[in-house]
Amino acid sequence: MTKETFSLLENYMLSNMEDSAHDKEHIYRVLYTALDIAGTEKSVDMDVLICACLLHDIGRREQFATGACHACVGADKAYCFLIEHDFPENFAAHVRECILTHRYRRGNQPGTIEAKILFDADKVDVTGAVGIARTLVYKGQVAEPLYTVLPDGQVSDGTGDAPPSFFQEYKYKLEGLYDKFYTKRGAEIAGQRRQAAVDFYNGMLREVSGTCGRGNELLREVLD
Amino acid sequence: MTKETFSLLENYMLSNMEDSAHDKEHIYRVLYTALDIAGTEKSVDMDVLICACLLHDIGRREQFATGACHACVGADKAYCFLIEHDFPENFAAHVRECILTHRYRRGNQPGTIEAKILFDADKVDVTGAVGIARTLVYKGQVAEPLYTVLPDGQVSDGTGDAPPSFFQEYKYKLEGLYDKFYTKRGAEIAGQRRQAAVDFYNGMLREVSGTCGRGNELLREVLD
Repeated sequence: MTKETFSLLENYMLSNMEDSAHDKEHIYRVLYTALDIAGTEKSVDMDVLICACLLHDIGRREQFATGACHACVGADKAYCFLIEHDFPENFAAHVRECILTHRYRRGNQPGTIEAKILFDADKVDVTGAVGIARTLVYKGQVAEPLYTVLPDGQVSDGTGDAPPSFFQEYKYKLEGLYDKFYTKRGAEIAGQRRQAAVDFYNGMLREVSGTCGRGNELLREVLD
Repeated sequence: MTKETFSLLENYMLSNMEDSAHDKEHIYRVLYTALDIAGTEKSVDMDVLICACLLHDIGRREQFATGACHACVGADKAYCFLIEHDFPENFAAHVRECILTHRYRRGNQPGTIEAKILFDADKVDVTGAVGIARTLVYKGQVAEPLYTVLPDGQVSDGTGDAPPSFFQEYKYKLEGLYDKFYTKRGAEIAGQRRQAAVDFYNGMLREVSGTCGRGNELLREVLD
C-alpha cells in the first residue's frame, strides 16, 4: 500500500471516531497487532488487511446513535467509500466481509485469513490490562457501576449477575475470551496478557469485598 | 447514631448521587474505611464522622454543572440540611468543616480527627485497583484518552504530559499519593493496595508500548 492510500483511509477513519473506548488509538493498536499476526501467517493480502483494520469501527457512531450493529453499518460504509474512491470492486467486497465478521455472531464467522486476523487483533485489545482499561472507560461512558451489592451487603463477584457492571462484564465476557482466537499468534499475545487482567480483577474484588464485608459489621456495631 | 438518623442522612445522600465514579458505592466504601480507621484513633465523634462520610460528595452534581468546588458546595448543603432537620448547630458546623477540608487545597487542611479520618478514607478510595478503576471510569465520562502518543510514534508514560490522559493522571496524581495520609491506619490500608496499582500501570504501559513500538516498524516496512 502506498503512503497516500494509507493517509486517505486513515483520514476517513479519523473523521468517524468519537468515543474514547473505541478511539483512534484502539484502531492503531488493532492495526499494529494485525501486522504482527500477519507476519506469522501465509498468503495474507496486506492491503485488504490494513484497510479493514483502519475502517473496522467506522460504524460505532451509528451504533451509539441508533443501536444498529456497528459491524454491519461499518462494512457498508467502508464498501461505499472504497467504491467511490475507485478501489477495485473485489477489494472493496473483501474489506466489507472482514469488517462484517469482526464482531462474532453465530453464523457470521470470519472466513478469509484477513478477516480472521482482524477478528483476532480486535479481540487482543480486550485482553490484559488494556482490555480492563477499555472496559472501565466504557462503563464510565454508559454510567454503569463497578459492581453490584447483594441484599446481604456483600459485593457480588459478577458471576451470574443480571445488572450490568464491570465485575459482571469481566465474568461474562473478559474472563473467558482467551481460547477464542483463530490464529496461533493472536492466542499467544492474548495469553501473555492474561495474568494482568486476572490479577487486576482479583485485587479489586479483594479490596472492595474486604472493605464492604468488614464495614457492614462495623456499621452494625455503631448504630443503635 | 440511631438507624433512623442514618436513614435520613443516607436518603439525602442518595438523592444527590449521579455520576458513577463518585457513585453511592464510593460513599459506602469511604464510610466503611472511615469506621475502620476510627477504630484505631482516640476520641472520635462517630456521629459527626458518619454524617460527614455520608454527605461528603453531595456537591458533585454542582461541580459537574458549574465547575464550583464540590467540597465547598457540599459543606454548605450539608450544613443547611442538618440545621433544617434540627441537628445542633455545633454538630452541623463540625460536619461542614470535615466536608470542606476533605479535598486537600493549600491552606485548607483538615483540623479535627474526624476531618482527618474522612480525608484519609476518601483518599484510600483512590489507591490500589479501586483507584485505577475509578480513574478509568472518570476518563470515560469526560472522554479523555488512555495515553498520549508522542510525535515519534512512541507511547508517553504520562510523565510531564500536558494533555490529560489516564497515564498522565497516574503519574501526576495516583503514583505519589501514598505518603499523604494523616492517620497511620489510612496509610497502612493504602500501602497494602499500592502494588496492585503499580502492577496495573506497568502492565498496561508494557502492552501498549510494545504494540505501538513494534507496530510502527512493521507499518513502515509494509508501506511503499
